[in-house]
Amino acid sequence: MADQGAKKSNAKGGGKKKEVKKETGLGLSKKKDENFGEWYSEVVVNSEMIEYYDISGCYILRPWTIAIWETMQAFFDAEIKKMKIKNCYFPLFVSPGVLEREKDHIEGFAPEVAWVTKSGKSDLEVPIAIRPTSETVMYPYFAKWIRGHRDLPLKLNQWCNVVRWEFSNPTPFIRSREFLWQEGHTAFATKAEADEEVLEILELYRRIYEDYLAVPVVKGKKSENEKFAGGLYTTSVEAFIPNTGRGVQGATSHCLGQNFAKMFEINFENENREKGMVWQNSWAYSTRTIGVMVMVHGDDKGLVLPPKVAAIQAIVVPVPYKDTPMEEIYDACLKTVDTLTKAGIRAEADLSDNQTPGWKYSHWEMKGVPLRIEIGPKDLQKNQVRVVRRDNSAKEDIPVSMLVEQVQDILAKIHENLFNVAKEKRDASIKVAKTWEEFMEALNQKKMILAPWCDEQEVEEDVKKRTKGEIGAAKSLCTPFEQPELPEGTLCFASGKPAKKWTYWGRSY
Amino acid sequence: MADQGAKKSNAKGGGKKKEVKKETGLGLSKKKDENFGEWYSEVVVNSEMIEYYDISGCYILRPWTIAIWETMQAFFDAEIKKMKIKNCYFPLFVSPGVLEREKDHIEGFAPEVAWVTKSGKSDLEVPIAIRPTSETVMYPYFAKWIRGHRDLPLKLNQWCNVVRWEFSNPTPFIRSREFLWQEGHTAFATKAEADEEVLEILELYRRIYEDYLAVPVVKGKKSENEKFAGGLYTTSVEAFIPNTGRGVQGATSHCLGQNFAKMFEINFENENREKGMVWQNSWAYSTRTIGVMVMVHGDDKGLVLPPKVAAIQAIVVPVPYKDTPMEEIYDACLKTVDTLTKAGIRAEADLSDNQTPGWKYSHWEMKGVPLRIEIGPKDLQKNQVRVVRRDNSAKEDIPVSMLVEQVQDILAKIHENLFNVAKEKRDASIKVAKTWEEFMEALNQKKMILAPWCDEQEVEEDVKKRTKGEIGAAKSLCTPFEQPELPEGTLCFASGKPAKKWTYWGRSY
Repeated sequence: MADQGAKKSNAKGGGKKKEVKKETGLGLSKKKDENFGEWYSEVVVNSEMIEYYDISGCYILRPWTIAIWETMQAFFDAEIKKMKIKNCYFPLFVSPGVLEREKDHIEGFAPEVAWVTKSGKSDLEVPIAIRPTSETVMYPYFAKWIRGHRDLPLKLNQWCNVVRWEFSNPTPFIRSREFLWQEGHTAFATKAEADEEVLEILELYRRIYEDYLAVPVVKGKKSENEKFAGGLYTTSVEAFIPNTGRGVQGATSHCLGQNFAKMFEINFENENREKGMVWQNSWAYSTRTIGVMVMVHGDDKGLVLPPKVAAIQAIVVPVPYKDTPMEEIYDACLKTVDTLTKAGIRAEADLSDNQTPGWKYSHWEMKGVPLRIEIGPKDLQKNQVRVVRRDNSAKEDIPVSMLVEQVQDILAKIHENLFNVAKEKRDASIKVAKTWEEFMEALNQKKMILAPWCDEQEVEEDVKKRTKGEIGAAKSLCTPFEQPELPEGTLCFASGKPAKKWTYWGRSY
Repeated sequence: MADQGAKKSNAKGGGKKKEVKKETGLGLSKKKDENFGEWYSEVVVNSEMIEYYDISGCYILRPWTIAIWETMQAFFDAEIKKMKIKNCYFPLFVSPGVLEREKDHIEGFAPEVAWVTKSGKSDLEVPIAIRPTSETVMYPYFAKWIRGHRDLPLKLNQWCNVVRWEFSNPTPFIRSREFLWQEGHTAFATKAEADEEVLEILELYRRIYEDYLAVPVVKGKKSENEKFAGGLYTTSVEAFIPNTGRGVQGATSHCLGQNFAKMFEINFENENREKGMVWQNSWAYSTRTIGVMVMVHGDDKGLVLPPKVAAIQAIVVPVPYKDTPMEEIYDACLKTVDTLTKAGIRAEADLSDNQTPGWKYSHWEMKGVPLRIEIGPKDLQKNQVRVVRRDNSAKEDIPVSMLVEQVQDILAKIHENLFNVAKEKRDASIKVAKTWEEFMEALNQKKMILAPWCDEQEVEEDVKKRTKGEIGAAKSLCTPFEQPELPEGTLCFASGKPAKKWTYWGRSY
């Protein structure tokens, strides 16, 4: 179980160190820089975030994962409630006719749709699809509920599971056949309102990545090729994994324009009794966020959790020494946990007596707990505790009288440091390429490439074709909102035509 | 949209009273006492809780519903976290081999299992089941995770959707093909621990019904016939719908014994290095809770929401009079909302200017808002507001200076009254039957029958056969924990054998 060690009630009985050690499989057999893929699988399993499941592409999300998900959910849910967005729940199932109403959209999803054809031993009259996303599930009812301008804006969200039966390389969190997400669906009277909300939501996604997961992201707009099927334009936050040289679409906020409104006849009568058509958005982030966090911060000792999302922010470990009575140390540990808990810090003590302190250090490092607090006889004497940071192994002695303030301070510093280190690595991976040669060179070096582009769809198609290879073709990641200066006369790196914008390119997940 | 009227930003533009009135379909065409089934469908739709969906047995849960669900979820989730139960998420899909591992269990669910057989246009190699419940999904991993006594107890819960493709009479909330629930799954070293948790959880379910939904329930044990397929024993909270004379199983807390542990080989080594087998529980409550609440409290004006779960506890309605300037009244309304909100009361103002106060009264009555606060010129003069209760239409004038205290007090009284009225009706529906004649008479009067029973499975089968009819057979609902005295020599109402206990019987949902 995730944290058996932390349970005091279990802190009895004889030790079986060797057996436990073998079983727990402490330590990683792969290194992040040497074999990233296997390192990642090992980290998510050994840290007790994920258990592989007997159906390929499906994973068990263990409590250590769900605690992270719930923290982000509490933040995001409160924020969208402030925006007067309301939670609802639409069915998991879609009938084929409705699913296929919007042609571009369904083309994007059709190969991945899972179909229910039987119940018990009987065939269904008509096969029923499992939602890959809920645009087509919801919008027939938007058409029903929206009549006049007073029914607008209509702003809904749901927390749910979706299924995309992908066959390419499943990866825990990053690409799974079922995943958890929130999907927001909103309808407005005017494009201006829709545009504004797209960016408001995108900013919340940036905050999830940067303020909670300590992962730097780039805000930008997707190319025509990469935008949401059936939508008008797509904005996203893009993260980057330096080890694999791949971009990751972190979350997307789409303006759907009036395309779905047309297909589903979502009309309204405005103040002047004129008929209008709504402007729609949809936006989502998923459990993928957690995978990006693992990939960015994890190290050869295991997971590294940013304090904001860690189920346990500080683990207190007693360090017995020779004949010192244990009770005193245990009491100090429990008192420390109590003090921290009362100050709102998520702290637990690992008082199990069948493991050495060293075993416990490794165990909680594997699980990525941001701060370890060690308490031994000397600490008792000096009325202090020793704290050890997970992110940089820095040690510090803290007087008990300053416990809360200093732990709070260190947790804030850990977040800051995780973010800064990640940003430095990300920034060091960015390379500007103005020509095809520079582009290919940077791509081979697994860079995130910032290149001037003519913004033509055929050119992106062409880039994809020319870079096709075993490890996947390059494509545009996003056109960042923060545009460097584009001197007049700058040419597209790929087509040689006049460039219109700077765009990020690279391989991606 | 759910509460368009409450948005001040929309409080502009000309009125189109008649049109809106027609479209909103205020008022119910059916009466609760005359045509309960249609009344229920009308209430859940007109109160904007449910929208019927184009796939039979699937329903859209609108924000008015989800707000109730989230309130109960916040309560229950916090309580189980105190019990050290951890949230996780297991896949939606089960492979057939695993699903069928426990024979009694799968027999109970097999006819209702939905099967995915295709993805895109390809057939899957093996059909994959959608979880009807997750015992068989989870327990292979329990076997993997549990090795020694230190891994126990293992206490997990998940909030998710499940699918049971039932063909009998779908009813919103009460019987739907997909529904939301939580399912807890726990494993212990000893039966005593499992037994204790079963009742702890059952008490939480009682609190959901009685303290949140103001619905009286009976705690008890299910008969062998009615217990969970594959489990050892099932406890439940049972509600009763006097209008239809049907019991409703409100939520269940099962002790699974060691049956699943045997099938899935969930073993552990105890302190003395002896091999043991775990004792397991599973327990769940679902969106059915909401349906029970609607059925119990709703009336001919619509939904009646208990204050604890109402998204809006108090709706403030301005009552203009002739030439009084509206602004002053609007300001008083907003100030009232502000005062109440700051005191933690969920209040909103309905300032839309295209509806009459009367329209608004009906609208918010239909939606079941517990308290209406009216503010007109006279109230302004007297520095008071008028409050009108949804449950009993009682009116009262409250001085503005006492607003918060009195509203809090009235909300508490509304809860109490809803519960008491429901309990009186429920109690009036209970009939003691000592003979088969008395039993049949009471059944025909749609009663919840308390009868002395020999507790033999064949006798229950026999009761079912003998009462089979168009509106369904009678069965045992539960054996209440609170047992009336059973004088020696009392005979079973059905078999004439010596009775062992008092058991509730009736038709049920």
